[in-house]
Order: sequence, then C-alpha cells, then structure tokens
Amino acid sequence: MEVLKNAEVFSPIRWRDGLQLLDQTLVPAEEVWVDCTTPELVADAICRLAVRGAPAIGVAAACGLVVGLQTRAAGQSLQERFDEVYDLLIKTRPTAVNLRWALDRGREVFSALEGKNDDEVINSLRDWALALHAADIETNRRLGQFGGGIFRKGDRVLTHCNAGALATAGYGTAVGVITSAFERGNLSHVWVDETRPLLQGSRLTAWELSRLKIPYQVVTDSSVGALMSRNLVDRVVVGADRIAANGDTANKIGTYTVAVLAARHGVPFYVAAPLSTIDPTTPTGSDIPIEIRDPKEVTRFHGVDVSPNNADAQNFAFDVTPNELIAGIITEVGVLEPPYVESIREALQSA
Amino acid sequence: MEVLKNAEVFSPIRWRDGLQLLDQTLVPAEEVWVDCTTPELVADAICRLAVRGAPAIGVAAACGLVVGLQTRAAGQSLQERFDEVYDLLIKTRPTAVNLRWALDRGREVFSALEGKNDDEVINSLRDWALALHAADIETNRRLGQFGGGIFRKGDRVLTHCNAGALATAGYGTAVGVITSAFERGNLSHVWVDETRPLLQGSRLTAWELSRLKIPYQVVTDSSVGALMSRNLVDRVVVGADRIAANGDTANKIGTYTVAVLAARHGVPFYVAAPLSTIDPTTPTGSDIPIEIRDPKEVTRFHGVDVSPNNADAQNFAFDVTPNELIAGIITEVGVLEPPYVESIREALQSA
Repeated sequence: MEVLKNAEVFSPIRWRDGLQLLDQTLVPAEEVWVDCTTPELVADAICRLAVRGAPAIGVAAACGLVVGLQTRAAGQSLQERFDEVYDLLIKTRPTAVNLRWALDRGREVFSALEGKNDDEVINSLRDWALALHAADIETNRRLGQFGGGIFRKGDRVLTHCNAGALATAGYGTAVGVITSAFERGNLSHVWVDETRPLLQGSRLTAWELSRLKIPYQVVTDSSVGALMSRNLVDRVVVGADRIAANGDTANKIGTYTVAVLAARHGVPFYVAAPLSTIDPTTPTGSDIPIEIRDPKEVTRFHGVDVSPNNADAQNFAFDVTPNELIAGIITEVGVLEPPYVESIREALQSA
Repeated sequence: MEVLKNAEVFSPIRWRDGLQLLDQTLVPAEEVWVDCTTPELVADAICRLAVRGAPAIGVAAACGLVVGLQTRAAGQSLQERFDEVYDLLIKTRPTAVNLRWALDRGREVFSALEGKNDDEVINSLRDWALALHAADIETNRRLGQFGGGIFRKGDRVLTHCNAGALATAGYGTAVGVITSAFERGNLSHVWVDETRPLLQGSRLTAWELSRLKIPYQVVTDSSVGALMSRNLVDRVVVGADRIAANGDTANKIGTYTVAVLAARHGVPFYVAAPLSTIDPTTPTGSDIPIEIRDPKEVTRFHGVDVSPNNADAQNFAFDVTPNELIAGIITEVGVLEPPYVESIREALQSA
C-alpha cells in the first residue's frame, strides 16, 4: 500500500494495527494519514471528504465497523455496538450506495458469526473488511481491463472529478480504465475537469496522473464545451456514486453537463463502476437521494471569502445522468450496454 | 459615479482629473481604485483584468488614448504619440471587439481634430471619451428596458460571468436586463454561475446583485445542468465579447456549455450586448480570435497551488455559442431575432 510503479496500487485506506485514511482534503499540498481510532473519526472522515469516492467510502465504512467493535465500552454487547456504529456510519452520506452495500454486507458477516467469542468475531470481521479492500482493487483491475479495450490509438479522454485510486481501495475505476488504456498505448492525453467546488479533479486526479506519468491537462469545468467544439475529446469516462436499475447514474455535480455536451458532439460517454455501485432497489435516477452540501464550499476558497459575505450558494453534490446519454457502463464483468434494465439485471444475476 | 440606490449607476471607470479604474481583481474583498497615470498602466489594467468586460474595456481604452496624449514626451508629436498608444492598447486583449471599436472611433475623432492646437485636441478627445462613457450607460439602460420586457412574473434567470455595471461604463448589459426585469416585478431569483477560473460571477455579479438587493444564489459552473433538470431556470441571459455577423457569440468560457444545456431543456438563452459588440467584419464565430490565458489562473488560487506543481492547464478565456442556440440578442435598438444575418444587418444600418 505504498506508491509504487505504474501498474502498482496506491491505496488511500490502510490497516496498520488500525485504520488509517489519507486525508484527501489536503492532497496534493500534504500527505497526512488520519488514525481512525474511533468510529466517530471514521464518520467524520467520510462527512468532510477526507475519504471520498463511492468504493472508498464503502471500504472505509467496512473498516469502521471493525474499529467500532474494537472500541466498545466495557459491558456493551457486540450486537449493541454493531448496531450503534452501523447507524452512525449509514448517516454520513446519502448518495453513494456503496456505503449501504458495504455496511449491509458487514451485517451479514457479523450475523453469521453469532456464537463465536468476541475476539473471533472481531478478527473475522476485520479479515472480511481487509478482503473487501483487496477485492475492490481486483474488481477495479478487471473493469480497467474491460474499459481499456474500448480505446483507440491516440484517444484523448476527458474525466470529471476523481474516480481513481483515491476514490477506491486502489487502482481506481475511471482512472483504472485510463491507466489500462494508457498501458496498451491507446491513450494520448487526459483532460482533467477541475471539479468545483472541492477540486477533486485538479487536486486528486492530477496528483494521480502525475504519479502514473500519464499526460494530462487540467481544465475548468466550464471548458468542456470549448474542448469538444474544437474536436479535442474522443471519449469521456467517469465514475459513479449510484447507478439505478435502469442505468441512470448519479455522480459528482457536473457529470450530467459533460454527458449532454458529449451527446451533442457525438463523443461516447462511459461510466466505470463496480457492480456494488449499482442499486437494483433504486428504479430510476429520480429515486436517488442527492446530497446538498454547505454553501461555504462554494463561496469560500482556502479560507478566503470569494463572494460577498452575505452570499448564499446552492451546492448540490451530485447530479443524475440519464441512461440515454451513457454509451456503456464498464464493470468488472464487462461493459454493459443499453438497454440497461436488461444488461444490469443480467450482470447482477451472473455476479 | 458612486454607489447609489437601486436604479442609479455605479461605474468601475471614473475620471477625476485623470483616469481611475476599480481594480476588479480585488472585489469583493477590497475596493481599490488604480490611478492610471500612464497608458502603460491602462494596458496593464486591461491585461490583468483589473478592468474587464467588453464595453468597459472599450471605454477604458478610449480614456487610455487621452492619458497617452497627456503624457507624451516633450517634442513628440500628438500623431506619433496617438499611434504609439493605439498600438499599445490594441494588443492588450484579442477577443472583445469593443476594444478595437473604441480605439478606431478615437482615431476618427483624433483625425477630425487636425489643425487644432494640442490642448484643444486633448480636451476634445477627453470630452469624446467621457461622452462615450455616458453613452455606454445610456445604451445599457435602453437595452435593459428591451430585455426586461421579455421576462414573465416569477422568472428565475441564470447568468454566467459578469455582464454588469463592472463590465461596462455602468448599469450593465445582462445585469442591466436583470435589473430592469426585477424593477418590473418580473424576476424572482438569479442563479449566478461562479465562472472559473477568475470567479467573475461569485465575486463580481454577486457583489453587484447584493448591492442592488436582487435575490440570488451562487452555483458552481458545473451545477447548471442539475438546476435545469430540476426545472429551476426559466431564462438565461449573458453578455458578449464579440458577436459575429451571423450572430455567433464569443463570451466567457462556459457560456457555450450553458447554451447547450438551455437548448436541451427548452430554456430560452439570450445575449445582451450593445451594437458596438457586434463585429460585421467577422463573418462567423470560427473567425473570432480566442484568447488563451495563463494556466496558473487555473492551477493556482489566491497564491496557493491547487494542483501538483508540475500540472499544466488549458485555459481558453472564451468560447463561441453558435447562433442557433440563441433565442435573441438584446441591444439598445431592440431584441434581434433569427435569422441574425438579416436582423443584425438591419440593426447596424439603422443605428
């Protein structure tokens, strides 16, 4: 879990006698690891986006369950503590479905351990969480392989937000696809949307691509139309926070705008996400809860007010891209194509 | 030229025994007036966007000609000095056509003064520049009236960048239209795109609307799609840096993206600009030179690197919105409608 060469895996989540999360609010200026010694610290890290990205949130929450059991009060039952920590973590963020997915799988594992002694339960749950971490990386490698096969020599790809190693347990989804395409020699340039307000593109994706030595340039989010009208973008690939049963996809605010522009310019628009990001219980995009965050994320910048003091802002954290704008959903079992109701159902059944 | 009540006019350009420009790079944190005692200081103010907005650049350049004549070296002829200052100012920024328009009109006025003594020439050119300043405000008031008439009760309007008093000699173009609509009771809310990288929306338009007591919220540029898909935008009005003979419009980067989204959602998209922003010698949008600015405007903020140190950025300052996406061009002689080749030709002939 260190920064290694190109194809190796950097993870923002590590277990060293306990959970440590890279504080992504400080990247690229600083690399600070937060010791998450209590579940409250895990919840806080998720809420303030120290750890972010749907798959990473899922893995961090799984580890958070373990931290919770390890730190229970004397006399508190494991079951009571589990429920308490589950409730704490499930409330942190509403949109990414991987959070619920990981916590619910944790509950299944926990329930299956009934009858074991406390240490056995805690160790088994920790082993499960670490296996989830490893499995997420493996999932991303596989979806990266499927996605990389889509690219053609010289392709210039645009991505929005960060769906890289930092957004996952490692390797990344959209950035995993980009890495795979680059390694095949089928990618010449990455356009990195800066992704206001929190700049996950210009801070995090740029940081990852720099380390991977993949050529890129940052652009403001509002430049995408100009790039496409100049024929400078061949393909778009983004991550996802939740994919509905019909393929409608919630992702970082601005993704929908990119998809609309891509459609106008005939640029194929792909979503890269593990099957755990697909929520078959959410029928369509309009059923996905969209987080609204603090207006100050927009009106302040690095502690400096950029708007008049009394300025209010509307800060939707995500938007929904309707399925008809999506050329394919790149998963660990292959690239799903329209009609998504069917391809998603089949993929989930096969998994 | 002070900040007065609602309908009164604030100007970022004033003449107090000499030219003073409000340094818009510092708004809203500070209100600092730059004494432009040399034409080099005027050019610098234009280049670094201390004064910006196509009409304001035109008026500032006109005043810059006067400052130039006033500061000529002993023995230098007015003609030689005029040519020197014209050449200095014309090179400052390539896209806004008002710069050339004002400088060329200044040259006509200057030429017509041949035979007068030096003081008469300088005083007459100064009177012309100040008349241009007053005329720009009057133009904006008129186009504001035409534009305000388009709105319907309860309209929620979105604007991009700043096309307000700060972008003109006063009153503003797009913000003038918004002001007029608000005074008629036909506007309930303004969505202010922050307008990265230099935040002319969240800094300048928000500052103006706060002073005008017009209700608004700032949004990131990437939020426009989400707002429109939630049916929260009834109309878009933006300014322009250059309008080609066919109605294609260059304006701040991101404008094209807003126009594409508006088209998808059936939201009427208007351009508000004086006739001086129309360039009949530029046939189409693809003939408009687009300024590319320093990548550091994107990768640094308030002196802080937001990207890895080695990150490059592509920083187009403007994009081009094709005429088919524009519902109307609001000018001081009325609202021009498609087909623009004809409506623009007629408007310019009538003016």
